[in-house]
Amino acid sequence: MKTLVTVREIRERSKALKAEGKTIGFVPTMGALHGGHASLARRAARENDAVIASVFVNPAQFGPGEDFETYPRDFEGDAAILESLGVDSVFRPAPGEIYPEGFATKVEVSGLTDRLCGGDRPGHFAGVATVVAKLFNLVRPDRAYFGLKDAQQFFVLKRMAEDLNADVSLVPCPTVREPDGLAMSSRNLRLSPEERKAAPRLHAALELGRKLALSGETDPKAIIESIVEEIRKSPLFEIDHVEMVDTKFLKPVGILKPETAKEARGEVLAAAAVRLGKTRLIDNFIL
Amino acid sequence: MKTLVTVREIRERSKALKAEGKTIGFVPTMGALHGGHASLARRAARENDAVIASVFVNPAQFGPGEDFETYPRDFEGDAAILESLGVDSVFRPAPGEIYPEGFATKVEVSGLTDRLCGGDRPGHFAGVATVVAKLFNLVRPDRAYFGLKDAQQFFVLKRMAEDLNADVSLVPCPTVREPDGLAMSSRNLRLSPEERKAAPRLHAALELGRKLALSGETDPKAIIESIVEEIRKSPLFEIDHVEMVDTKFLKPVGILKPETAKEARGEVLAAAAVRLGKTRLIDNFIL
Repeated sequence: MKTLVTVREIRERSKALKAEGKTIGFVPTMGALHGGHASLARRAARENDAVIASVFVNPAQFGPGEDFETYPRDFEGDAAILESLGVDSVFRPAPGEIYPEGFATKVEVSGLTDRLCGGDRPGHFAGVATVVAKLFNLVRPDRAYFGLKDAQQFFVLKRMAEDLNADVSLVPCPTVREPDGLAMSSRNLRLSPEERKAAPRLHAALELGRKLALSGETDPKAIIESIVEEIRKSPLFEIDHVEMVDTKFLKPVGILKPETAKEARGEVLAAAAVRLGKTRLIDNFIL
Repeated sequence: MKTLVTVREIRERSKALKAEGKTIGFVPTMGALHGGHASLARRAARENDAVIASVFVNPAQFGPGEDFETYPRDFEGDAAILESLGVDSVFRPAPGEIYPEGFATKVEVSGLTDRLCGGDRPGHFAGVATVVAKLFNLVRPDRAYFGLKDAQQFFVLKRMAEDLNADVSLVPCPTVREPDGLAMSSRNLRLSPEERKAAPRLHAALELGRKLALSGETDPKAIIESIVEEIRKSPLFEIDHVEMVDTKFLKPVGILKPETAKEARGEVLAAAAVRLGKTRLIDNFIL
């Protein structure tokens, strides 16, 4: 596996693969890789001739006071995982390679970023959309793989890629979970033992809400209330948001159509964000 | 010459040219083509295997109350000119092809867009940067050609392309002028006979300023004043701005280094925008 650090190197590698007629699957990450990332890379390997991953803790998507400094980093571990998965190259740029002096451009997606994590973290998705627009231009992938734990991120990036006519298919991949249901996340590493023990309650609460919908409850307020109530049973959680939105515009939904829950047509996103001590965790389900 | 109207058609044409190993020169325009555009297309033809032009009056770069509706349009004339110049294809999308329902993405370049036309026309350069980012993704040119009459546009787009790692060289091309000095512009078509007669004064005033600098005047205030004074000799002009800025950040310059004027190292932009009746004209020189 090649480790590439400059814009020039990644561009050349992408061109070399294309010159060989190979399709490229791209897995952008912030490192501290876990089973969720591995599932993305495995799927990318199945569906493409070559896989390029990136490991870049993107300062532009962290707000002031957020956890940029303490975000987990372990490039040696990451490289070992990616190599074992048959990844062709990993792009690991320094921040100055991505944001050189004088950098002045921002890619913003409006509307879809107003609520959920976009509401909690102003500027976050502009940081994400900008760096991914850059990475798409550098890697020129045929397909790019994103985990649905970050559902809003996927919908925002899909909109951005379509709007900017980036010639890439965005592939949403199911959330991978620990045996106790906790969605895999690099940030789980930062939980104290007590917090880690409490953390699966987030998924459990969402499961409760999902089952309520599946059992015929069509009022999003009732579903949200049941999720909030279940989370609040533990005093360790602080809730940033619990919302139900449509998956096209990410705006609050009204009374659900009975078939929405029954057929799970991908129309409604129920998403929650909580803080457990200093660690922010998110999870969701889609109906 | 092919006329392409859909995103799919332009993408396929670009891919076909690349598959033949051809380099692509790109000339983005808003139509109503004149000698300035022709000079861009001629240079693109000299430096590339194939030329793609676009003709799209981009609604996103016009503010409320600006001249989107009345902007000159003459696609038959444009097509004849492009064909005579040996252009391979012209991309002429409908607005809905570029901005489909739900479109939500904006590319913004900060700092460089604060002053000059960016100051006079809020949102203008976000509209320009967004559509050009899209066109670069669709056409995938090796080189893209821009006239220096729109100097700020060139500097903003160069910054955008570098920042987003678009794999394209932006080529600045000299302003082409009418025999009386007026910079060629599609908007010249909208001048009344009286306005058209007065219009060359804009270039004449800038020439006065340029000669003042070349003769050793190093105070931008004095140079700007002489330009303003000369423009004001005609009562037909209203001035939007006359400014001298550096070409890197487009911020006002202090006292010029004597060598700036003498060697014309491309470091200082003197730019003016005026209104002649309902028509806005711009021009500039670079030292």
